[in-house]
Amino acid sequence: MTAERPQPAGQVLVASNRGPVSYTRAGADGALTARRGGGGLVSGLSALGPDAGTWVCAALSDDDRAAAAAHGGRLPAADTGGQSVRMLDISPETFDAAYNGVANSVLWFVHHLLYQTPLEPVFDERFEARWARYRAYNRAFADALAEEAAEGAVVLVQDYHLSLVPGLLAKRRPDLRIGHFSHTPWAPPDLFRVLPDEMARELLLGILGADRAAFLTARWARAFTECCAALLGAEVTAPGPAGDGSVTHQGRTTRIGVHGLGADAEFLRERASRADVAERAAELRERVGPGRATIVRVDRTELSKNIVRGLLAFRRLLVDRPEWHGRVTHLAFAYPSRQDLAIYREYTAEVSRVAEAINTEFGRADWTPVVLHVKDDFARSLAAYRMADVALVNPIRDGMNLVAKEIPVVSERGAALVLSREAGAAEELGADALLVNPYDIAGTAEALHQALTLDGPSRTARAERLTARATALPPTAWFLAQLRALRPA
Amino acid sequence: MTAERPQPAGQVLVASNRGPVSYTRAGADGALTARRGGGGLVSGLSALGPDAGTWVCAALSDDDRAAAAAHGGRLPAADTGGQSVRMLDISPETFDAAYNGVANSVLWFVHHLLYQTPLEPVFDERFEARWARYRAYNRAFADALAEEAAEGAVVLVQDYHLSLVPGLLAKRRPDLRIGHFSHTPWAPPDLFRVLPDEMARELLLGILGADRAAFLTARWARAFTECCAALLGAEVTAPGPAGDGSVTHQGRTTRIGVHGLGADAEFLRERASRADVAERAAELRERVGPGRATIVRVDRTELSKNIVRGLLAFRRLLVDRPEWHGRVTHLAFAYPSRQDLAIYREYTAEVSRVAEAINTEFGRADWTPVVLHVKDDFARSLAAYRMADVALVNPIRDGMNLVAKEIPVVSERGAALVLSREAGAAEELGADALLVNPYDIAGTAEALHQALTLDGPSRTARAERLTARATALPPTAWFLAQLRALRPA
Repeated sequence: MTAERPQPAGQVLVASNRGPVSYTRAGADGALTARRGGGGLVSGLSALGPDAGTWVCAALSDDDRAAAAAHGGRLPAADTGGQSVRMLDISPETFDAAYNGVANSVLWFVHHLLYQTPLEPVFDERFEARWARYRAYNRAFADALAEEAAEGAVVLVQDYHLSLVPGLLAKRRPDLRIGHFSHTPWAPPDLFRVLPDEMARELLLGILGADRAAFLTARWARAFTECCAALLGAEVTAPGPAGDGSVTHQGRTTRIGVHGLGADAEFLRERASRADVAERAAELRERVGPGRATIVRVDRTELSKNIVRGLLAFRRLLVDRPEWHGRVTHLAFAYPSRQDLAIYREYTAEVSRVAEAINTEFGRADWTPVVLHVKDDFARSLAAYRMADVALVNPIRDGMNLVAKEIPVVSERGAALVLSREAGAAEELGADALLVNPYDIAGTAEALHQALTLDGPSRTARAERLTARATALPPTAWFLAQLRALRPA
Repeated sequence: MTAERPQPAGQVLVASNRGPVSYTRAGADGALTARRGGGGLVSGLSALGPDAGTWVCAALSDDDRAAAAAHGGRLPAADTGGQSVRMLDISPETFDAAYNGVANSVLWFVHHLLYQTPLEPVFDERFEARWARYRAYNRAFADALAEEAAEGAVVLVQDYHLSLVPGLLAKRRPDLRIGHFSHTPWAPPDLFRVLPDEMARELLLGILGADRAAFLTARWARAFTECCAALLGAEVTAPGPAGDGSVTHQGRTTRIGVHGLGADAEFLRERASRADVAERAAELRERVGPGRATIVRVDRTELSKNIVRGLLAFRRLLVDRPEWHGRVTHLAFAYPSRQDLAIYREYTAEVSRVAEAINTEFGRADWTPVVLHVKDDFARSLAAYRMADVALVNPIRDGMNLVAKEIPVVSERGAALVLSREAGAAEELGADALLVNPYDIAGTAEALHQALTLDGPSRTARAERLTARATALPPTAWFLAQLRALRPA
């Protein structure tokens, strides 16, 4: 990516809920220890060089808050690897209400179509209090960015946690060039209208405060413009596959862009070649048994990931195609997520129940059809990627789904990809994946069979094209493309 | 409607799941007794005169099946009031699978956006067996219509139970002019895609077998054309408020129409003036207490009707506007529906729980805030219509909602209408109703307050316009308009 190093024109700020550093108390003395994360924003911002950028993020835990307080909100370079980071010491009540009570419940559920609408959501007084805190949390970010930003700086605001920030910031600092990026799908108007009208307007106007609003795929970008037309009466130009749409409202035009975040091949291949991964691969191979094909899935146990129907599709494969009995193992890694919510706990339990039922129905002394792991282990996930004959990625709706892009890169067996057409990744990978309707269990089972029986040359050719497309826009390039699009022509 | 009597050109057939007659065993000898129903199709078909039409319907019960069998499927004129009726003796298993297993569960849920998508629907082998029976049930209708229809006859096929009939019939009888009418909303493509692909195609192609497919509102008609474009790649012209759209697919064009079924003012006023209604009105007035305003809702306890949020909005009114304590009573009539399904039973129980909680929180010795009735009583419903100061009609999604049109016609108090924007009726009544977002409890509460405080002249003027619009297309005219639209120009 060094060739893509941007012109060093001015300061760049990134705003996101989660920052590049988190703190825990470690050791006998309970000293605060920094831990640095990865991802596209981290590599992108660091590619700009040591002095170009500032990151504004929230303190996510008591330990983060303690560290932020200890350093007046500006984290020491020793903790951040030289990156300038402003960590906001937002109160636990405000953070919880904004992050859990609004963003990860209401907005996540709306964009992923997860609500059981007859009963949820209920926008009562408790919700209104949470919404007030979501606004306060967004104001805290806008305030910090207004303070940190130099004249004419570029600000890249991330995701549905910070939807109001562009609007708040643009009012205070019209000199800035502001981008907003949505990492989720976007709801069609009929579902977005579930939100209270004033809240829906504020969210759309918040994002429209940006000079440019970008999305992972043209489909989600179009859904956003459709919501702007339907709810605000805005004038819109629908974005094509590469973006280039616009929304004009109250005399102001926001450009609409698309940047399909790709896999980080360099990082993945290096990490997957380490000893701990090889060790896990040997353990898994022992468990699967020699010569058996593998169908691999790796997900957080998130309602949108559709793990239960994935298991039912594997079961259906065994029902419809008995020739696979004893010849294929489904490695299903489903790592618990949001276990504070009853519906996630129930969903996690259902995943285990269905996996056990399949093993009871079809298992033999020498063959366990489903190997389910629920404890997060990155090295084991990469080991499974390496062994994958088939990758199963079947979310009911997903912004992108990076697993769909990572497995082709790491698989040593030219993994065939069974991919939900409702995943953002389908827009780029659809031609070489076996696309499925995620609700259609029989159809998914048939796609699994086709994936298992893809002949060598076709498998190899598809795998090569999948890898090429999956890595077309790696994280740093993804970040720099957004930056370029915001700079004046 | 006598002025609208159509030209007597040729035979007209109506096909619907429920026919104009049903049977029960009555009396000591258990003899089969016919009972005639009402509605737009009955009055419309009878307006054509005694020999013009034939009705094809399903036997809905064992008694219906016995009657159909006793008469070789053609019901005697004495039972039907002269109407020619062919009642299909479909096996109970096929009927149950088609009616409950496909139409009223899957199709109803999809079009009303009722699914909790992470867990439902599950299209497994059991579902596939039901779908096969839905096809068989549709074939039975198409077979009977092909037999009954004279050369060039007009066939009006009703609703989502019979989506495949137009396509099946058009193949066998290209001489016929076929209409299909959808009485439900239509799902946006993102939700319609939940259906297995082949099933979704068959449903769309089935309706496109008609020369003209009509809907209750332009919104649902547009959603249908969007599904045709997204799923079939069809060429579509989006319908305007009065219809006039089209879908062209595989060289065949289906016109798209809109007919907003109105209330039957003549029938309602006559029925509401009878003694049993006056008696119920006196009982209700006694219960409400003198001088108190009433907010009236009448619904089947259907998941889409949003009764729980309606109660929560009434509660919110009492929280936000204490001046209404003791001055307003909510008459909530919620008649049990589909109690064979667990989720409907739970929803019914939740309605009672919330109503009781409100009465516990706010009730006084001389004032019961919510008067909930769960036993269906048409005379009492009409009595409540007569007494209504405010009508509350807040479905999360509804094809039309005739209660919104009936209450303005019957109310003696110039009822103000608080109406969900997601009800089909909002398209026609929106200008004179207080439109609400049905998910927005605080917004609905505020609309209830505004409705209660509408001043006399504004209330009267609105009520007059509501009544005029609600009765603009009464059932017979609605039927004849469809017929005219199908006849060659």
